[in-house]
Amino acid sequence: MLFHVRMDVKLPRDLPLAEADALKATERARAQELQRAGVWRHLWRIAGQYSNISIFDVSSPQELHDVLSTLPLFPFMEIAVAPLCRHPSSIREDDT
Amino acid sequence: MLFHVRMDVKLPRDLPLAEADALKATERARAQELQRAGVWRHLWRIAGQYSNISIFDVSSPQELHDVLSTLPLFPFMEIAVAPLCRHPSSIREDDT
Amino acid sequence: MLFHVRMDVKLPRDLPLAEADALKATERARAQELQRAGVWRHLWRIAGQYSNISIFDVSSPQELHDVLSTLPLFPFMEIAVAPLCRHPSSIREDDT
Amino acid sequence: MLFHVRMDVKLPRDLPLAEADALKATERARAQELQRAGVWRHLWRIAGQYSNISIFDVSSPQELHDVLSTLPLFPFMEIAVAPLCRHPSSIREDDT
Amino acid sequence: MLFHVRMDVKLPRDLPLAEADALKATERARAQELQRAGVWRHLWRIAGQYSNISIFDVSSPQELHDVLSTLPLFPFMEIAVAPLCRHPSSIREDDT
Amino acid sequence: MLFHVRMDVKLPRDLPLAEADALKATERARAQELQRAGVWRHLWRIAGQYSNISIFDVSSPQELHDVLSTLPLFPFMEIAVAPLCRHPSSIREDDT
Amino acid sequence: MLFHVRMDVKLPRDLPLAEADALKATERARAQELQRAGVWRHLWRIAGQYSNISIFDVSSPQELHDVLSTLPLFPFMEIAVAPLCRHPSSIREDDT
Amino acid sequence: MLFHVRMDVKLPRDLPLAEADALKATERARAQELQRAGVWRHLWRIAGQYSNISIFDVSSPQELHDVLSTLPLFPFMEIAVAPLCRHPSSIREDDT
Amino acid sequence: MLFHVRMDVKLPRDLPLAEADALKATERARAQELQRAGVWRHLWRIAGQYSNISIFDVSSPQELHDVLSTLPLFPFMEIAVAPLCRHPSSIREDDT
Amino acid sequence: MLFHVRMDVKLPRDLPLAEADALKATERARAQELQRAGVWRHLWRIAGQYSNISIFDVSSPQELHDVLSTLPLFPFMEIAVAPLCRHPSSIREDDT
Repeated sequence: MLFHVRMDVKLPRDLPLAEADALKATERARAQELQRAGVWRHLWRIAGQYSNISIFDVSSPQELHDVLSTLPLFPFMEIAVAPLCRHPSSIREDDT
Repeated sequence: MLFHVRMDVKLPRDLPLAEADALKATERARAQELQRAGVWRHLWRIAGQYSNISIFDVSSPQELHDVLSTLPLFPFMEIAVAPLCRHPSSIREDDT
Repeated sequence: MLFHVRMDVKLPRDLPLAEADALKATERARAQELQRAGVWRHLWRIAGQYSNISIFDVSSPQELHDVLSTLPLFPFMEIAVAPLCRHPSSIREDDT
Repeated sequence: MLFHVRMDVKLPRDLPLAEADALKATERARAQELQRAGVWRHLWRIAGQYSNISIFDVSSPQELHDVLSTLPLFPFMEIAVAPLCRHPSSIREDDT
Repeated sequence: MLFHVRMDVKLPRDLPLAEADALKATERARAQELQRAGVWRHLWRIAGQYSNISIFDVSSPQELHDVLSTLPLFPFMEIAVAPLCRHPSSIREDDT
Repeated sequence: MLFHVRMDVKLPRDLPLAEADALKATERARAQELQRAGVWRHLWRIAGQYSNISIFDVSSPQELHDVLSTLPLFPFMEIAVAPLCRHPSSIREDDT
Repeated sequence: MLFHVRMDVKLPRDLPLAEADALKATERARAQELQRAGVWRHLWRIAGQYSNISIFDVSSPQELHDVLSTLPLFPFMEIAVAPLCRHPSSIREDDT
Repeated sequence: MLFHVRMDVKLPRDLPLAEADALKATERARAQELQRAGVWRHLWRIAGQYSNISIFDVSSPQELHDVLSTLPLFPFMEIAVAPLCRHPSSIREDDT
Repeated sequence: MLFHVRMDVKLPRDLPLAEADALKATERARAQELQRAGVWRHLWRIAGQYSNISIFDVSSPQELHDVLSTLPLFPFMEIAVAPLCRHPSSIREDDT
Repeated sequence: MLFHVRMDVKLPRDLPLAEADALKATERARAQELQRAGVWRHLWRIAGQYSNISIFDVSSPQELHDVLSTLPLFPFMEIAVAPLCRHPSSIREDDT
């Protein structure tokens, strides 16, 4: 099942640069791992903002929470979640 | 280029049923035509609401406006648009 | 899986009384049917408002949407949905 | 009587890790104590957020305030409270 | 126990004057009846608006809902409710 | 004349405990002094929040400002003020 | 004493033109009467909107409410009120 | 030409007292200088808040910006600006 | 001097088509007249919405109001205005 | 293609003055470079606020993001983006 997730990242200014870079690197690695696993199905940057729109394919809200809450950047993100389902006009069989 | 579009549909109660059904049918046909053309790349229903999240692949904001503003349900929709671009952590070559 | 749903009902004033009463009766019957089926697990009235807080136990967002969007009062409701999961401090095995 | 309570937790980044863990541990112990006492009737995690939806069964708003304001995490929480009562369509005798 | 209630009244323009006056008269009579019964403890007009701030003294949220939802003007009001309790700095024994 | 005042207190975490306690003590003493003087007519705690709803009886907005702006906790409060007047349905002669 | 009042006027489209013009004429006459009486001290148009910012000089919130609530356009206005008092840096003796 | 300006002042707590007092003194002197020059025509305190409502009489938005952005407290203020013009019902020749 | 204006158009559904078309035609003619006169300097469509962003070059807020408030679509528009001035980093001499 | 961008700058108070000045200088240089390149087409100051309204002419949302996210002040800005297209009533051929 799919969930629409918007993440707005606000890194505190006094976070040491090295620590910030390390966080971003582990976040990136984790995100790519989840994409390869088919969990993180879409990951787009919102142009002009340190934010992304993502579509997650998980088995339950519990799995969604476990994935999101263990992201390295989770403590620095405002997250909004909306459950999705198939639109009656969608012609795609592979989009739910 | 991709645009994230949220559409909230509010059909007025005093719209005759036949007219509403006709509108929905033409909207559905148009949506499927645009999907087949690759313009309307994703169309998801937000669970619990008469709303959808869509991803449009168009050549410009002008084309996006022409597509959205000529949708049969356009007069009855509140629409929010956000421009998307490739996320540096996205592993997908086909998602921009 | 559980979803938290808030429903705010706004019946238009010019809805004939008989039609409104009929709608409420079918809504009530449907709600009780869903409660007996274990889908509509909790249904509380928010004191002072024509609104309710509900907890739905469904198999997917699709099922949630099918249930909500076919409620007789659906056209007259503003609905907000939030996916729930087990809280790490919850001692209840029967609350997810 | 029941109260619907939403808690959004925002732990300051400069809270020493040990202190944060201690706070969470005492919060967890207190929450489970209140659940066993039947005061904290439901405690759900909102998927994707450091937030919970809870249902409290207390004798008065005063008791609700005494419980909430003495939670270890109280200083770090934004709390919204709504009084609940029985919904006329609820079939449950045990849900008020 | 006390509840803080704000009521914003929006009477539809096409409500016949006689009907509106009748509604206001029954609302006024009911409000005064509740005040005499000690349920509607305070009723103030917010200067400049068709709104009031009220303090209700009831035995439960259920009683609060029964009182508010049966007010003649209820269908035309937006209502916000907040549960009150004694402030630790209040010197009044008669204000809870 | 009466003013409805809502105060939301946000004490900064890095305020030394002794200083915070001293502030609260002087705030409490001042609040009780004003209550005895009949200026601070009602002071209620909003259940679940570090906030209060108060009714002030003052001779003018200037007096209201002088009282509020000299409260020890004033620098740490978000304050909303609404002027009140007698409601045409109020039966109380002593509530303006 | 002074009150800052913002009025946003929304005349319903189906108000007969003659009735609307009559309303505006009586509103204008009443506004000018109140200005001559020194009650309506300032009346400015917000450029680009059917709204005004006004400063009222009245003896109490009650008088403010009596003035505002009897304006011919009152039923079609959204009104926001803020009590003013002398600013410590104001050099004007005539502005309170 | 006139501009309506609301200023909400939020002085950071860790601003040394001497520095804060100096800022307020220079702000006060500058405000009075501008009032004497007829630029800052009205300056009112919003009762209960560290905020003011002001009316500026300037030759252009550029002059307004130059005045506001060079106020000593500018870095600590949230400012909202609305352009004003003569209201058709205003009887005052001196209020634009 | 320049003003940034956002206009959101909401035409009522029960406006006869012919009347709506006539309104749009006169609006269009008036807009083009103002553009030729250099008053309406920029007029852009916000992609996906029946809204525009415009830049007006006028002599005063009064002129801005006279222009906006006499637009044929004015009664059906929500308008937000912000005064602009030269940005210190702008290299353009012709953009104020 | 054009994008409307609003930037609200919030420089943290504890940013050393020299660092802030250096940031502003590089921001200014970069902004002017982009203006000369025709990418940053319009740059206006919103009177009274540390904010600007800009119009960017770029080839895609990706280019817009690359430009905005590499601005020296990007970490200190809240940015809102809206895609623009030609308004049917615009007489300008050079404004898209």
